[in-house]
Amino acid sequence: MKLAIAQINTTVGDLEGNVRRILDAAKSVADQKPDLIVFPELTVCGYPPRDILYDSSFVEAVQHATLDLARQAEGLPPLLVGSFAPAEQKMYQHPSLNNIAYLMQNGEMKIAQVKQLLPVYDVFYEPRWFLAGTKTLPPINIAGKKVGVMICEDMWDEEYPVHPGADLKAMGAEMLICISASPYRRGGGEGRVHHAERQVVSIRPAKSARDYSTTEMPFVFVNLVGGNDELIFDGGSFMLHGAEVVAEAEKFEENVKVFNTKDTKGTKEVQGEEEVFRALVLGLRDFADKNHLRHAFIGLSGGIDSSVVAVIAAEALGRERVTGVAIPSRFTDARSTESARELASRLGIGFEVVELERMHKAAEQAVGPKRSDGVAGENIQARLRMIILMSFVNQRGGFLINTSNKTELALGYSTLYGDMAGAISPLGDVTKAEMIRLGKWINEEWKEESGKRGEGGVIPQFVMERKPSAELRADQVDPFDYEKISPDMEALVLSNQSNPAMRASEHKRWQMGLVLKVSEKSFGRGRLMPITRR
Amino acid sequence: MKLAIAQINTTVGDLEGNVRRILDAAKSVADQKPDLIVFPELTVCGYPPRDILYDSSFVEAVQHATLDLARQAEGLPPLLVGSFAPAEQKMYQHPSLNNIAYLMQNGEMKIAQVKQLLPVYDVFYEPRWFLAGTKTLPPINIAGKKVGVMICEDMWDEEYPVHPGADLKAMGAEMLICISASPYRRGGGEGRVHHAERQVVSIRPAKSARDYSTTEMPFVFVNLVGGNDELIFDGGSFMLHGAEVVAEAEKFEENVKVFNTKDTKGTKEVQGEEEVFRALVLGLRDFADKNHLRHAFIGLSGGIDSSVVAVIAAEALGRERVTGVAIPSRFTDARSTESARELASRLGIGFEVVELERMHKAAEQAVGPKRSDGVAGENIQARLRMIILMSFVNQRGGFLINTSNKTELALGYSTLYGDMAGAISPLGDVTKAEMIRLGKWINEEWKEESGKRGEGGVIPQFVMERKPSAELRADQVDPFDYEKISPDMEALVLSNQSNPAMRASEHKRWQMGLVLKVSEKSFGRGRLMPITRR
Repeated sequence: MKLAIAQINTTVGDLEGNVRRILDAAKSVADQKPDLIVFPELTVCGYPPRDILYDSSFVEAVQHATLDLARQAEGLPPLLVGSFAPAEQKMYQHPSLNNIAYLMQNGEMKIAQVKQLLPVYDVFYEPRWFLAGTKTLPPINIAGKKVGVMICEDMWDEEYPVHPGADLKAMGAEMLICISASPYRRGGGEGRVHHAERQVVSIRPAKSARDYSTTEMPFVFVNLVGGNDELIFDGGSFMLHGAEVVAEAEKFEENVKVFNTKDTKGTKEVQGEEEVFRALVLGLRDFADKNHLRHAFIGLSGGIDSSVVAVIAAEALGRERVTGVAIPSRFTDARSTESARELASRLGIGFEVVELERMHKAAEQAVGPKRSDGVAGENIQARLRMIILMSFVNQRGGFLINTSNKTELALGYSTLYGDMAGAISPLGDVTKAEMIRLGKWINEEWKEESGKRGEGGVIPQFVMERKPSAELRADQVDPFDYEKISPDMEALVLSNQSNPAMRASEHKRWQMGLVLKVSEKSFGRGRLMPITRR
Repeated sequence: MKLAIAQINTTVGDLEGNVRRILDAAKSVADQKPDLIVFPELTVCGYPPRDILYDSSFVEAVQHATLDLARQAEGLPPLLVGSFAPAEQKMYQHPSLNNIAYLMQNGEMKIAQVKQLLPVYDVFYEPRWFLAGTKTLPPINIAGKKVGVMICEDMWDEEYPVHPGADLKAMGAEMLICISASPYRRGGGEGRVHHAERQVVSIRPAKSARDYSTTEMPFVFVNLVGGNDELIFDGGSFMLHGAEVVAEAEKFEENVKVFNTKDTKGTKEVQGEEEVFRALVLGLRDFADKNHLRHAFIGLSGGIDSSVVAVIAAEALGRERVTGVAIPSRFTDARSTESARELASRLGIGFEVVELERMHKAAEQAVGPKRSDGVAGENIQARLRMIILMSFVNQRGGFLINTSNKTELALGYSTLYGDMAGAISPLGDVTKAEMIRLGKWINEEWKEESGKRGEGGVIPQFVMERKPSAELRADQVDPFDYEKISPDMEALVLSNQSNPAMRASEHKRWQMGLVLKVSEKSFGRGRLMPITRR
C-alpha cells in the first residue's frame, strides 16, 4: 500500500488558496500513484477558524469549496481531506458543525470519519463550534485494506470515555490514519508518538511497557504545518510500523511525499534549542506573510532579548525585511548601542539610531518632576521608545515585533504600552533562562547564508556577558536572579497558579499582542485568567 | 411558603469574603423565618472563576470553604448555595468538576442539583472546566413542597437535547427555582422571563402564545449582581406566578428579601438608556473596588465620548476619585478644553490641563518630518497623550479609563497604545449612535446628588452639538456618518461577519483592555476572532 502524506501550510479562511494548495500537492505526487493522499485536519478552511464559524455565510462557503474540491480532484488519486458540515442536531447559539474527514475519489466525496473527541483545554475550544460525532464510523477500503480514520484528539483518548481507535480495531481496521492540526510545544513530538503507539497496541496497557508484539498495524499521523496567530503547527507527520517510527516528514516545512511501511527513518532530528528556534521562525514568518506585512521593526537595546529576536526575524523574513532601531537615552551605555549596530551589521538588517534625550526632556517638562520620577519616569522612557518605533511602522508599513520574555511578562516587569508593545512576541513564551540558552545556541550553531558572523557568533560578546538591565536609570541592574526565578515563575504558570506580582500584572498581559506558543501554557487565548480576583 | 432571595455581589476567588457575605445575607432575613434562602450560581467561589479552576489547590480551597459554610450556617434557615465538586468521571487536562446547587441545613449539606447544560457560546466556556450532570435530580422537600432546582443554562434548554425543567415537573415539582449568574445585556431581562414562562408551561409550545392556564407553578429566578472584568451581572431576580412576574429584586444592586407568591410587583422598572447607564456604572465601580483601585483618570477631550465616560465614572466612583485630564494640542479648539473644564467643574471631579505642544514638537524633531506627517503624526499625538495620562496613574496609583466607543473600535478608527489605552472601557460595547443617545439621556435625566448642573444638563452644549472630531489635524472632522455607520458596523459584529476595516484592525482590538459588555456581542473574550485570516 502506497500512502502520500500532504503536510501543507493552509491559511484560515483562504478557501480558494487552500483548495489550490491541496490540488497542487495532490498533483505533485500523482505520478507515483499513491493509493491515498492524506491531508491535515480542517484542510479546506484552515485551522483554527475559531469564531469565524459563527458566520453562517462562511460555513456555507466552506461547504461549497469542499464540494468543489472533490469535483476538481477527479482523475487524481483518492484524497483524505479535513472539512466540516452541519451536524444533525442543532444547539443553542452554536454553529452545530461536525469536524469531518472526507474521502474524495472519482469526483465524489463521502464521510470517512466524524471527530468524536473535542478538546476544550488550553488553546482548544472546539465544543464552541463543533458537536461530537456520536459513533465511530467503520474503516474505509483503500487498495483492498481496511483503513481506520481518526481526527486529531481522537487518538488522545486515554482519559476520555470514548475510544475511537479501539472501535476501529474492533471493526477490523488493518491500518490507522489520524489527520491532525496539533500545535507545537517544546518536545511535544514524543507525546504524539506515545499516543500513536498506544493506538496500535491494546487500549488496555500492554503486558510490558514495550510489548508491541500484539500488532504490526501501521499508524499514520498527518499534521498541519505553519503559523496562525499564537499557534505554530510544526508538521512532523510520521508513520509508525511495528510500533516504531519508520518514516517522518520534515518539521517546520511543507512536505508532500509518498510513504511506505517499509521506509526507514531518514529525516534529520530537530531538537532542543534548534527546535524552538525553528518553531519561532515559522510562527513569525507566517504571521508576516499571511497578513501581507512586508517589513518588521525591532527596538534593539543591545540586550540579549532584542538580539535574539533580531536573529529570529532575520531568519524568518530575510535581512532586507527587518530594521533594528536603537533609541539610546541618557542612561544607555555607549556599548549597548554599539553592540546593537554591530549585530545589525552582522545580520545585514537595516539599522537606525534615534536619540531619546530631546523627547525625554520635553516629556519631563510637560508632566513635571513629580510624574517623571522613579517608576513613572522609567515608564515614560519605555513609552517614548514605543512612539518612535511605531512611527517607523506608520511611515513604512509593516509591524513592530515585541521583545519581552516570558519571565518578565509573568513578573509584570515591563511597561504596558512601552516595551510590552508589538503585534507579535516571539519570546513571550520563552523564559529568560531558556532565552539565554537560545542566545548561546545561536552563537554556537546558527549559520546564516552569507556566513558573515563575528568571532564568537553573531550576537556580540558584550551582549552575552553583560548583566541584564533595562537601562532606565543610572547603573540599573534587573533585580532578579533569572536562573532561579525563571523556573519558579514557569512552574507557577504551568500549574495555573500565581503569586501577587503575577496577579497584579494580569491586566497588562490582557493587553499584550500575540505571543507565539512554544510551551505547555503560554500567555494568550489558552489562559483565561480573571483580572479581578482575590 | 416563604422564600428569601439573596441577590448578592461576590468576588471571584474571595472565598472568605463570599462566605461572610452569604452568612450576613442569611442572618439579615433570618428573623422573617423564610423556608429557604436562595443564592446565585457558584456563590462560594464567585463567577466566573475561569482558569483559576485549573489550579487544584484552589479547587480544594473552595470545597473546604463550602463545607465550612454549611457548618457555620447551622441554626440559620435552610440555604440553597452554588458551588462545585469533582465529578465522578475524569477528563484529559480538565478539572472535571460538577457545577452544583447545595441545600445546606442543620449544619449539613447535600446536592440539590447538578448543572446539565453547560453554555459554550459568546463569553461562556463552561465545558472547559465542568462536566455536565448526567441526570436531573428529583425535587427537594421544602416546607412540605416539592421544589425543583435548576442552575442557570438549565432553564435555557429550548435547543438542547436535555430538558431539566420538564424532568422536574415529571418528578412532581410544585415549584421551580433557578440559581443563575446571567450577565447583563441590553434588554436581556425579557429573555429570562420568556424562558421562565416556558418552564412553567409545557416544554412543548402552548396552544396559544399566552396560554398559561396549564399551571400555576411558581418559578423563582435568582441572579448574581456585580461586575467582574468584562461582565456585568445585573441581578433582577424575580418570581413568576401564574406565568406573570409577581415580584422582582432591584437591578444593579444587592438585594436580600423575602418573596411571597402573593406579592405584587413593586420595583421600579429600569429600561432604555438608564439601564445601560446603571450597568456601566456597576461594572466600572466593581472593577475599581474589587481591584482596590482608588483613583481613575480620564483624558477629557471636550468630545462626547470622554464626557459620557466622565459622568459614568463620577457616578460609579464618586467625584473625589476621578480626575479628568485635558491635553490640548495646536489643533485643539479652545472651546474643547473649556468644555472639558466646565464638565469637570459641574461634576466636581479633579481637572488638570497639560499642554501637548512641547512634547509634540520634540517628537517631531526626534522622528523627523517623514515619520511625523499624516497618520503617523496623528498617532504620535494620541500616544503622547497616553504617556501623559499614564504618568498620572504612575504617580498617584489607580487606573486609566478608556474612552473609545464600539463603532470606532470596529472600524479601527483609533490609535493603538494611544486613545485605545486604558485598563477598562465603559463605552467599548456602546456604538457611537447609542452613545449620543446616552449623552442626551444624561443631560435630560441624570441627577447628581448636589444638583449642580448646567442649564441644559451636565454635558456642555458645545460638546453635544459639535461635529465629531479627533482634533489631530487642522479642521479635522471624523469621516463617517455615525447615524448610518453605527448600526451597519453593529450588524456585522452581531452576525460575526466583518469588512476589510474590521479585519485590518483585529490585531488592535486584541490588545485592548477590558470592554464592559452590554450588547449581545462585545469585543473581548466572548469573541475569538483570528487575526490572521483571509
